[in-house]
Amino acid sequence: MKLSAKQLVDFCTNAYIAMGVPQADARLLADSLVQAELWGHPSHGVMRTFWYGKRLQSGAMRARTKSELVVDAGAIAVMDGNEGIGQVIATRAMQEAIARAEAHGIGVVAVRNSGHFGTAMYYTRMAAQAGCIGFLTTNGSPSMAPWGGRTKLIGNNPWSIAAPAGKYAPMMLDIANTVVARGKLHVARKKGESIPLGWAVDKEGRPTTDAAEGIAGNILPFAGHKGYAASIMMDVLSGILSGSHFADTIVGPYSPEGKSGVGHFVWVLDIAAFRPLAAFEADMETLVEKIKGSPPAVKGDEIYYPGELEARADARSRSEGIALPDDVVSELNAQATALGVRSLS
Amino acid sequence: MKLSAKQLVDFCTNAYIAMGVPQADARLLADSLVQAELWGHPSHGVMRTFWYGKRLQSGAMRARTKSELVVDAGAIAVMDGNEGIGQVIATRAMQEAIARAEAHGIGVVAVRNSGHFGTAMYYTRMAAQAGCIGFLTTNGSPSMAPWGGRTKLIGNNPWSIAAPAGKYAPMMLDIANTVVARGKLHVARKKGESIPLGWAVDKEGRPTTDAAEGIAGNILPFAGHKGYAASIMMDVLSGILSGSHFADTIVGPYSPEGKSGVGHFVWVLDIAAFRPLAAFEADMETLVEKIKGSPPAVKGDEIYYPGELEARADARSRSEGIALPDDVVSELNAQATALGVRSLS
Repeated sequence: MKLSAKQLVDFCTNAYIAMGVPQADARLLADSLVQAELWGHPSHGVMRTFWYGKRLQSGAMRARTKSELVVDAGAIAVMDGNEGIGQVIATRAMQEAIARAEAHGIGVVAVRNSGHFGTAMYYTRMAAQAGCIGFLTTNGSPSMAPWGGRTKLIGNNPWSIAAPAGKYAPMMLDIANTVVARGKLHVARKKGESIPLGWAVDKEGRPTTDAAEGIAGNILPFAGHKGYAASIMMDVLSGILSGSHFADTIVGPYSPEGKSGVGHFVWVLDIAAFRPLAAFEADMETLVEKIKGSPPAVKGDEIYYPGELEARADARSRSEGIALPDDVVSELNAQATALGVRSLS
Repeated sequence: MKLSAKQLVDFCTNAYIAMGVPQADARLLADSLVQAELWGHPSHGVMRTFWYGKRLQSGAMRARTKSELVVDAGAIAVMDGNEGIGQVIATRAMQEAIARAEAHGIGVVAVRNSGHFGTAMYYTRMAAQAGCIGFLTTNGSPSMAPWGGRTKLIGNNPWSIAAPAGKYAPMMLDIANTVVARGKLHVARKKGESIPLGWAVDKEGRPTTDAAEGIAGNILPFAGHKGYAASIMMDVLSGILSGSHFADTIVGPYSPEGKSGVGHFVWVLDIAAFRPLAAFEADMETLVEKIKGSPPAVKGDEIYYPGELEARADARSRSEGIALPDDVVSELNAQATALGVRSLS
């Protein structure tokens, strides 16, 4: 089924309102899910609507987000999310950091007691759109063993950086500290293909080329010890600096119950405090053009700068609509009906 | 030959003094090289002494480092290194950032017109020792093609984060955005072994399992497009935000001539501005203990936290001495003799 972004945002907004979320927050949460669809990342899209919904209904995530600043000191702040909605808290933290950057050149917000916020670049893009460079990381529920270990201890703890690129769409990085997305293992299993050594270990921590064993075990960090160390440091910034939970004490969005304990860490730089924004943007345009003009390994292939594919997917989906698989639509509609919310059609 | 850290520092200091470097700066540069040896990273150690030396002698790198702050605005600053010594400039930038963090909770320094500074965690460790979290990245000479490309356009642009860990040695990350160190390809070639697919491409940009072809071509970024995007964003922070060179306009330390154009980006957080340092350190100790207590994949193996191996190597080398290969000693002594500096013995 093909739907417009507006149809999907309205549907999700109504579902969250029915679960007690104030209208503006419901729309923000809906928009963040639909934006992931628009960028071509359905794994972070509307199929997650009721994952968050179940946490709202259990009370593990509070429908009314009462965040507060527990430290408010010029360029820096610490925000307590009080177990509200991760997307709402992350947005407030980013807005705080942007305002502080405009006043001090740099703004930093450490966030405790938040929740899973979806796609990190949904928030860093706000900084880029404000003429700033934005950084955001978060910890997450355990999905990775320490390097050389066997059992899950740390999250894959994604991080994102976004910067304006002049006349081009913002340059945006948004990565987890894993070698590959879990989805690629599911694809390999369905096709009956083996996976390269170095992608995953089985549940005993042994290297495997069997996709099913990898799914039962652990996806490996990128470049082995490098991704392991990066994921730990992102947990230090997100969980420990903020005074939130860390390592194996985080509860993920897939669990309908249990305090999340997720923390985030945001910094925003006001580019104009460092050098004229126009000069920065001219250099960014040069960088984009160097990348685009670089000779491809395979003749005729196009080379992309970070964030370019998402910008293109966004433009295409906004004009052509967002295609949702039938099983996703059926599941969403079943849940909506139970809430008395109008179905997608 | 086994030498003490002091012998090596004295040797390198004397060599740099003979090349016109002021004594304190000569000692700093020497110490940074010897510290890499102590940490067990000889690739960044004293074998590089005269690589930097040749740049000093050609005048590409100025022996007297006259850095200046071109922006000095509270929590942030922009430093112009004026083509001085990268190690001296990075140290000054880190000290500036620590002082600003102590005053504002956060300190940021963007650096332009610097040079190759060796090992990033030499500087971030200073922040950890001051009760802060330190971040440092730099751009570097082109060593990586854009993802899907064939020719070198961007550096491997390493980045480092360090944090105090209470009673344990600081937790430290220091990584380049590549899947593997170039040295591993040299080892494979010497042994006549093939390399895993995904480590490197040949000089036409085609995936290769031949170590020699990989050396002639390019080492790949970690996790493919992820490491590519991360390396570009580190260049945006190091080169473009600071108004320095970026992408293929950087000159590396292996070239005796040519303006480096390297830029850096530093931030330092004063932990105590966010939460009590003792509480932070208690959580860090818990994290270290969770990691160390995690069951190993291979029975009897030990699991390490980031920076632990370096701390152990440091303690061992300080008591047992640093072993240098004969060919490195011969080369160092030949260069020293030409300068009238006392040889290693």
